[in-house]
Amino acid sequence: MVMAEIDENSVGIVQTKSVRLVESDEPLQLECGKTLTPIDVAYETYGQLNETGDNAILICHALSGDAHVAGYHSPDDRKQGWWDNMVGPGKGIDTNKYFVICSNFLGGCSGTTGPSSINPQTGKSYGLDFPIITIADMVKVQKLLLNNLRIKELLAVIGGSIGGMQVLQWAVSYPNFVKAAIAVATTSHLGAQSIAFDAVGRNAILADANFTNGQYHGKGGSDRGLAIARMIGHVTYLSEQGMREKFGRKLRSAEQYSYDFNSEFAVETYLDYQGQTFVERFDANSYLYITKAADYFDLQKDYGSLTNAFANTRSRFLIISFTSDWLFTPAQSRALVEALAAKGKDVSYCDIASPYGHDAFLLEPETLGRFICCFLQATYRPEARQQPCSCYARSMRQLSRFEQAHRARVDYELIESLIEPNSTVLDIGCGDGGLLVNLVRDKNIKGEGIELDQELVLDCVCRRLPIIQQDIEQGLGYYSDKSFDYVILSQTVQTIKNPENVFKELLRVGKKVIVSFPNFAYWRCRAQIFLSGQAPVTKQLPFSWYDSPNIHFLSLRDFEEFCRKLGVRIEKRVPLVKASVSPVRFAPNLFAEQVIYVTSLG
Amino acid sequence: MVMAEIDENSVGIVQTKSVRLVESDEPLQLECGKTLTPIDVAYETYGQLNETGDNAILICHALSGDAHVAGYHSPDDRKQGWWDNMVGPGKGIDTNKYFVICSNFLGGCSGTTGPSSINPQTGKSYGLDFPIITIADMVKVQKLLLNNLRIKELLAVIGGSIGGMQVLQWAVSYPNFVKAAIAVATTSHLGAQSIAFDAVGRNAILADANFTNGQYHGKGGSDRGLAIARMIGHVTYLSEQGMREKFGRKLRSAEQYSYDFNSEFAVETYLDYQGQTFVERFDANSYLYITKAADYFDLQKDYGSLTNAFANTRSRFLIISFTSDWLFTPAQSRALVEALAAKGKDVSYCDIASPYGHDAFLLEPETLGRFICCFLQATYRPEARQQPCSCYARSMRQLSRFEQAHRARVDYELIESLIEPNSTVLDIGCGDGGLLVNLVRDKNIKGEGIELDQELVLDCVCRRLPIIQQDIEQGLGYYSDKSFDYVILSQTVQTIKNPENVFKELLRVGKKVIVSFPNFAYWRCRAQIFLSGQAPVTKQLPFSWYDSPNIHFLSLRDFEEFCRKLGVRIEKRVPLVKASVSPVRFAPNLFAEQVIYVTSLG
Repeated sequence: MVMAEIDENSVGIVQTKSVRLVESDEPLQLECGKTLTPIDVAYETYGQLNETGDNAILICHALSGDAHVAGYHSPDDRKQGWWDNMVGPGKGIDTNKYFVICSNFLGGCSGTTGPSSINPQTGKSYGLDFPIITIADMVKVQKLLLNNLRIKELLAVIGGSIGGMQVLQWAVSYPNFVKAAIAVATTSHLGAQSIAFDAVGRNAILADANFTNGQYHGKGGSDRGLAIARMIGHVTYLSEQGMREKFGRKLRSAEQYSYDFNSEFAVETYLDYQGQTFVERFDANSYLYITKAADYFDLQKDYGSLTNAFANTRSRFLIISFTSDWLFTPAQSRALVEALAAKGKDVSYCDIASPYGHDAFLLEPETLGRFICCFLQATYRPEARQQPCSCYARSMRQLSRFEQAHRARVDYELIESLIEPNSTVLDIGCGDGGLLVNLVRDKNIKGEGIELDQELVLDCVCRRLPIIQQDIEQGLGYYSDKSFDYVILSQTVQTIKNPENVFKELLRVGKKVIVSFPNFAYWRCRAQIFLSGQAPVTKQLPFSWYDSPNIHFLSLRDFEEFCRKLGVRIEKRVPLVKASVSPVRFAPNLFAEQVIYVTSLG
Repeated sequence: MVMAEIDENSVGIVQTKSVRLVESDEPLQLECGKTLTPIDVAYETYGQLNETGDNAILICHALSGDAHVAGYHSPDDRKQGWWDNMVGPGKGIDTNKYFVICSNFLGGCSGTTGPSSINPQTGKSYGLDFPIITIADMVKVQKLLLNNLRIKELLAVIGGSIGGMQVLQWAVSYPNFVKAAIAVATTSHLGAQSIAFDAVGRNAILADANFTNGQYHGKGGSDRGLAIARMIGHVTYLSEQGMREKFGRKLRSAEQYSYDFNSEFAVETYLDYQGQTFVERFDANSYLYITKAADYFDLQKDYGSLTNAFANTRSRFLIISFTSDWLFTPAQSRALVEALAAKGKDVSYCDIASPYGHDAFLLEPETLGRFICCFLQATYRPEARQQPCSCYARSMRQLSRFEQAHRARVDYELIESLIEPNSTVLDIGCGDGGLLVNLVRDKNIKGEGIELDQELVLDCVCRRLPIIQQDIEQGLGYYSDKSFDYVILSQTVQTIKNPENVFKELLRVGKKVIVSFPNFAYWRCRAQIFLSGQAPVTKQLPFSWYDSPNIHFLSLRDFEEFCRKLGVRIEKRVPLVKASVSPVRFAPNLFAEQVIYVTSLG
């Protein structure tokens, strides 16, 4: 009866397995300088390893997670694994295709050796005698597990939050082992605010009279302290907007205030509940050790800079943040992206719009699932890059936009003809990546894109293009000078707030900059303005004055004067009428509807 | 020797006074239904009450404040009052002009009756037997103090954070007593996130084994719990940016991690220190009662809506928020402003740019001081409105912008001539308020302004104009239909992203909308485009295509077509050449450099 409720997209009934990875005779060397032995690890797997062994995916869990990612532990089990909405047949991480592994990390309290384990030297649980562990130590133990399972390479390592820290550590520690690193809602290092929240939580545990310096041996140690730490955590996992919409000032039951200190607001009851259920399943000592590992995590510390830390990585990276996440902020994800891009790594980034705060990495299975699905597929079967990924079938709207964006770029053919084979190309406002994909196919270029629209970014991910979601007005400071043979700015200059800054930045980053735009001095425009005294409306300028995305109007002559002012050399000019590929030869500022320039700093 | 260090801008040596305001025979009726007696109040005063008694200002303190606002308690005292940078001779709240009063609020622990006071029924301190008090109760006791001091009216009530809640309560409870209400970094009600932080802090106190249900009678009650509550508070008072810049990941001493659970990061040491010093001067029971009063505060609860709550107020309001304050957010301040504006109240608002988070209300004395100084002066001596306030002398840059902005509005004279005497006017993008001040002087209008620039907002505050800092693209939803006889949009329509939405909104809010803009079809423009094929540069359109704030280009004909499309009636059209007040009569779309329209929905 209960089994019937397990739907076909579930991995079904699963078991947590356990394996001893470190024996007493060969203890594990930890980053803190101490050693640890023995080490047992709890893990689960879903799906099948294929014959070539190239479909294995490691999932790294966050603070309060465990090895139980998906499915149920028994037919009576009412609670699925913690990422069941992402892992299963046909889901974002498709267990029909991939072999998925997750283990409880070192220091945890769900089957893997941690401070609540028995210290062989005392016969009692370690408590605060457990050595301080780090994210790198966790990853080291995960690698031992994969060795044990005879995994020779990982298609991907995937994780959110502290799980994302492990992903980054994997890419740095084992560069040849990891094809794709998918780091969600994470950072290379916590900032002062996050460390502060962790510290207050630890203080609450340590201040609990029942904590007895960690030597509580089993249940009931620091229940109130741990609950308070968890409450603080929960406030930081949600967004202000999310809390406002979910709780607002709702009272638990009464309409009127009770005028006492009982939990009365719905949000108080929620926190009480979260604190209470957490202490029933979690260990206060583990909470101390894991948050300390998170605080200590600092990828750049040993390398001088984040850029250096990533220097030897060989993975493709997908970095995902969420707009309302204030614990692991979009700015922190951007710092990862910029460090990777600065080193010329294959990195894609999207800041997914979500109101759910940090918790969004668990609560946006649809959007996040499509990004992960596409990125995995493009890594696993790159030859299929011309077709949108199968998860697109879920949403016809996206398919339609995919096509629309393609049609909007009428000057592709000409721009293609201007680019040398085997060159490097950055396409600004690259849309669905249509031009770049053509250039890769026809000219064997190495291409990257920048695009603002979330759905178009996904299109590019799907097509295996490195794509960074960004507003070009923010600049490209992370790329060093002359990083690209070509930078393309197609049909965009007239929509940019500060074209001078942007154009200068493109000229710094690219050896050549290709710019195309509609010619405002096309004769039909001039005639309309001159004769009718109205803002012109043409095929190339199809908008009314009040609803146009174009906020600058320029002609060939305007642009050329602009180039003179900036000391920019115009290497080539291709004035065009309509979609014809034959350039206009006579009086182009009058007869060209649009124009393509190749420019450089000479 | 020590006295010499007290500078001339200090109020000097001051004393906290104490007065019994509620005697045993006439207990105070509290909002919770219980009564309380006796009630003693600690307070300080600075400056002198003048003969007419119209210069009294009440300052309301926040959670951890007290009656000691400014100056020193003794020549040896090394710590000034909590708002010494704002209160004193020549400061934002100038004690040479004003008589300033502040009292420790009810429930506090710095001299006024609170839970640490002796319960006359038991002879021991109240502890949790103290009745729950509210912000309204605090204000009631403050009113008793003012009666006792024979204050007949308040020039202003001023406070930040929980002090701001008291300010709002004052304006609602005693509408005829308060001329100006200055509410800084505050809200009409806490949201779920803030209640959650308060609740976690209270949990930490209540969970402390030494709290013993509040019956700890004196020191050492819930030191660890109170310290944790204070730490949580401190994280919320700072901004992420502020913490990043102040602490980052700095370690207290060593370069390398110590791999233990001692406080190691600078931010941890800071929090330890803040927690420790707080428990030395504050009382855990008071912390519970004050945060509960803040959580309960909800101005709209008894009135159905915030708009209704403010219906009977008669004060002028100055609402101030800080851009990086995420505890009492700018959005919450905006909600106050919108409710007041909806009721036609005299309200001014500025969201001061600051990186200091909620603490900015204590850490931006320069900017905040100028706003408060100007608002007080404009309330105290409204006849001086034509001159900038004396605090302007501090910054010559502002004086210069003051003038610049004035010069930019060449169409003032003509717009003035279009407006009927004694009407109501909303000026969008009003700059320094020059037009509105002229209209008040010459036509006796009731005017309000909307402006984005912080310095220009201050100019308007200085000139006693109700001024709301806002981006017009956000809409004017808070004003009801036909709130104004005239809405003016002068030289702005061409810089708005979405002119259609904005124009519709203006037409909803105003009976008539006056629009002026530069004519893009002026013959010089047409000729330039037609003959030279370049974006036109004229006196009215003096920018290059790449650095223009104008993002739409329209002509008289464009605008008139736009009006037809929206069903808008053009009541009057005044085409102009240069700054001449004589309208262009022949072929205005060709010969007018700029134009003024009076429009309505007919």
